[in-house]
Amino acid sequence: MKRQKIYEGRTKRVYNGDNENELLLEFKDTVDELASSGKKVKLNGKGGINSQISSLLFRFLSSYNIPNHFIDQAAAREIRVKKLEMIPLEIVVRNIAAGSLVKRYKIEEGKVLECPVIEFYLKSEEDTPLINEDHIVAFGHALTDELKEIHRLISKTNVILKDFFRRRSISLVDFNLEFGRREGEITLGDEISLDTCRLWDLQTDVKMSKGQPIQTLEELEENYKIIKDRILT
Amino acid sequence: MKRQKIYEGRTKRVYNGDNENELLLEFKDTVDELASSGKKVKLNGKGGINSQISSLLFRFLSSYNIPNHFIDQAAAREIRVKKLEMIPLEIVVRNIAAGSLVKRYKIEEGKVLECPVIEFYLKSEEDTPLINEDHIVAFGHALTDELKEIHRLISKTNVILKDFFRRRSISLVDFNLEFGRREGEITLGDEISLDTCRLWDLQTDVKMSKGQPIQTLEELEENYKIIKDRILT
Repeated sequence: MKRQKIYEGRTKRVYNGDNENELLLEFKDTVDELASSGKKVKLNGKGGINSQISSLLFRFLSSYNIPNHFIDQAAAREIRVKKLEMIPLEIVVRNIAAGSLVKRYKIEEGKVLECPVIEFYLKSEEDTPLINEDHIVAFGHALTDELKEIHRLISKTNVILKDFFRRRSISLVDFNLEFGRREGEITLGDEISLDTCRLWDLQTDVKMSKGQPIQTLEELEENYKIIKDRILT
Repeated sequence: MKRQKIYEGRTKRVYNGDNENELLLEFKDTVDELASSGKKVKLNGKGGINSQISSLLFRFLSSYNIPNHFIDQAAAREIRVKKLEMIPLEIVVRNIAAGSLVKRYKIEEGKVLECPVIEFYLKSEEDTPLINEDHIVAFGHALTDELKEIHRLISKTNVILKDFFRRRSISLVDFNLEFGRREGEITLGDEISLDTCRLWDLQTDVKMSKGQPIQTLEELEENYKIIKDRILT
């Protein structure tokens, strides 16, 4: 049976699964533009590493009772997941100031935030503007009780993942999450990978994933190798 | 004694008061650019009307126990207020979709929001970006308990003002508030005027203040006259 692609994003392709309650996520080897050339490049093995990290972290979160869409690793670059009714929010969880936070509010990069900061961005065809919880409820994207449950799951997930990375000498600076509904339950979806987590070396603050301008393919390859060694072996 | 100007904004000038705990707010007659000419113009009487509306509404809110900085009307275009330690937030309270909400989230103008929406904007020299409550606490602009009190005061103020305007056949679409601290108490500051309230006619939805492109000085004068008649007489 030829499988049917239903969506292609920056980091992965989404296919219909074997039945209507499942999807297949295929992680791409493509890398955002290199700073040196401005070109998109391919890093062999990238999709495989991100797929394995996502599998590992979703399994790990399941062991802490964080409901998520993961079923199993279907192939080297693919995971099988339960289909969710997605909530159109890109959620950013921040422990240390970096990226757009630094630019928007003139905060010093690397500042440890007094408390974790949760940002909601509205996913739309054109752009993803910052949005607050009043907007989310007023526009009908989620109910007040659903937002409360999302908050609870985010806080738990942040504590679990921060600790997971810390034990591997990695600082979890910020990361992206998406949630959906499944049989009435708020459920974590999407991916948790080097494309969605901003990771710095715990000792040196050297940037290991996401957000740094990558100069060369070799530099990126080296980053992926280090993180793979610390996390997957 | 020559009085000392300590700040001049778009709609008013702030002077030192008779003692160190007071300030004088002088409401300007200047009007934002006219759509027809792109020029700033002067509307005689504008500052006076806004100063009187502010006085009236601060007094009205006091009668409902909303702590605010108003002391008295000092002159036709001036009010005397208690000095606050200002919290650097421009707060927008929305009942009906208009202005930047419509542009940012592609919401239909005039849509009655399912629940009032509160937006916080960070005041800075360069710009005023949207900010959420996690940011506000993490950056140290306000404590969690202060935000809770601000929420309580905003909700009360919105109910009181909505009703005030409704009884005058005016719809309170959205309005701006600023808060500060005084002797440990969260206190409403700034102004409540035709420059900070977006008002539409309750029956016809005709725009009566703030945000509409004003074509001519005559049009603006007519708007001010109608609102003055409904509110101040």
